[in-house]
Amino acid sequence: MNSSTLNFSSWLSETVSSVEQHLQHYMPAVDVLPEVLHEAMRYAVLGPGKRIRAALVYASGLACMNSAMLEEQQKQNLSFAAAAVELIHAYSLVHDDLPCMDDDDMRRGRPTTHIQYGEAMALLAADALQPLAFDQLAQMHIDPLSIVQAIRVLSEAAGSRGMVGGQVIDVANVGNLLELSQLQKMHQMKTGAMIEASVRLGAIAAGANNDLTAQLNRYAVAIGLAFQVVDDILDATADTQSLGKTAGKDAQNNKPTYVSLMGLEASKAFAHQLYNEALVAIDSLGYQAQRLRELADFIIRRNY
Amino acid sequence: MNSSTLNFSSWLSETVSSVEQHLQHYMPAVDVLPEVLHEAMRYAVLGPGKRIRAALVYASGLACMNSAMLEEQQKQNLSFAAAAVELIHAYSLVHDDLPCMDDDDMRRGRPTTHIQYGEAMALLAADALQPLAFDQLAQMHIDPLSIVQAIRVLSEAAGSRGMVGGQVIDVANVGNLLELSQLQKMHQMKTGAMIEASVRLGAIAAGANNDLTAQLNRYAVAIGLAFQVVDDILDATADTQSLGKTAGKDAQNNKPTYVSLMGLEASKAFAHQLYNEALVAIDSLGYQAQRLRELADFIIRRNY
Repeated sequence: MNSSTLNFSSWLSETVSSVEQHLQHYMPAVDVLPEVLHEAMRYAVLGPGKRIRAALVYASGLACMNSAMLEEQQKQNLSFAAAAVELIHAYSLVHDDLPCMDDDDMRRGRPTTHIQYGEAMALLAADALQPLAFDQLAQMHIDPLSIVQAIRVLSEAAGSRGMVGGQVIDVANVGNLLELSQLQKMHQMKTGAMIEASVRLGAIAAGANNDLTAQLNRYAVAIGLAFQVVDDILDATADTQSLGKTAGKDAQNNKPTYVSLMGLEASKAFAHQLYNEALVAIDSLGYQAQRLRELADFIIRRNY
Repeated sequence: MNSSTLNFSSWLSETVSSVEQHLQHYMPAVDVLPEVLHEAMRYAVLGPGKRIRAALVYASGLACMNSAMLEEQQKQNLSFAAAAVELIHAYSLVHDDLPCMDDDDMRRGRPTTHIQYGEAMALLAADALQPLAFDQLAQMHIDPLSIVQAIRVLSEAAGSRGMVGGQVIDVANVGNLLELSQLQKMHQMKTGAMIEASVRLGAIAAGANNDLTAQLNRYAVAIGLAFQVVDDILDATADTQSLGKTAGKDAQNNKPTYVSLMGLEASKAFAHQLYNEALVAIDSLGYQAQRLRELADFIIRRNY
């Protein structure tokens, strides 16, 4: 993929299409027993989505490579890593939408998986996405020790000290007053951990050294928080149709958000500060980090 | 652990205690944020259990080693693999017990995890056990290529073509008439896949060669089916107290079982035939496979 000459939005479309084609190919086909399970898994994963995590994997991988021109195998390794983070993200959305959690009927303009396939099937389809994610990492064509490292990164980010732990703190604090530091910790775990893992896995798939990994990690921490601050701003300001999910739901549910704690203007300023921190972290990387800069920009300016 | 001289029931107790101590040590502590999540995870994993999968890991590992005396590191590798299969098994029980699945209030004589901690917490605690299982395999002190192989074995067994797929076929066929071959396929996926994986992972952790692995696999297929046939026999004949779960529930729920399809006597004969097949598969292995033979015997003769 000679994508270095594409403008950002074409590159992003190409990236989204790469990971989706990869998932189409590697997820069990709908004629494999049990057919309805595989249909539900594909419904959960292959519906419309921003694929920001996948894009971060590719952009981070590009930032670690000396050539702007990816060889086929390098591209495939990034696709394995990108598929892994998208599978984890997709399973978490299915479980978040269940009646015992957020009880959401719609997601990205479509019925949620349990509305479409029933609760039991949605539960199980999401359960089956997790092992598939780890299997994707195990299929990368890199040295086995790096694969083992990647497995540990994903496991930590997806587990109780990462995404699931953040989810628990979130659920437990609906209606509670949180301090800003607690809100930050919750978001770092709930969303930030998998965003950091995406950047880290892109670097591992591309064979990055430790110095580079540390720089990328600072970028990832800042952009992970920025992502959530923007999410809170959008929930407070955008309308339901452009969001693709119910707007104003956080305030309705009395959920603590950056906007409720800091106010709208201070939240916008904070998002911009985090954006700058992200750019500073990768400043020395030059042109090969261009996609990471563009993604930071995209995350800050998105309106859905 | 010089366990070669212990009688079977002492060896089994020692094995159960090894994997439980290992899990106690490696699972996140209850004072780590979010505390209640880690408490629920431990509740789900460390309650009373037969630990047959863990015992199969250890027994399979022993069958692959030349010495009856395990070195500390070999023992630890088997504990990592045993912990991985127990974590997957525990998560699957928590999700099976949820209201949208079997809606069970009791398991092994205790309130199920969602009764104890609420549905959302049970869902999430089980979700967080899956990455922990893969992380356990990633921590084995064996060559990284074998770890990658182990990750793929667990992923396949725990996924949509293994345990979760079998669960879906099971849920979809309550009240349906199944043919024996369909029932067998369902059980091979639902229970058999993880029992086969346990034997396979023990062999990988112990560095077995391919010939040995093939023999062990024939043992595992037979014993996996036998396990389920005995389960169906017990559900039809034992009382609730000795089972630790509601007896006669399959018939009540109109679930297809070996007993309902073959009758009680033919089911008993079939279980015995599978037991013999398992023993024949490992016949040439001599004394080092003694624990596998004893486990086959235990699985056939258990009354809970």
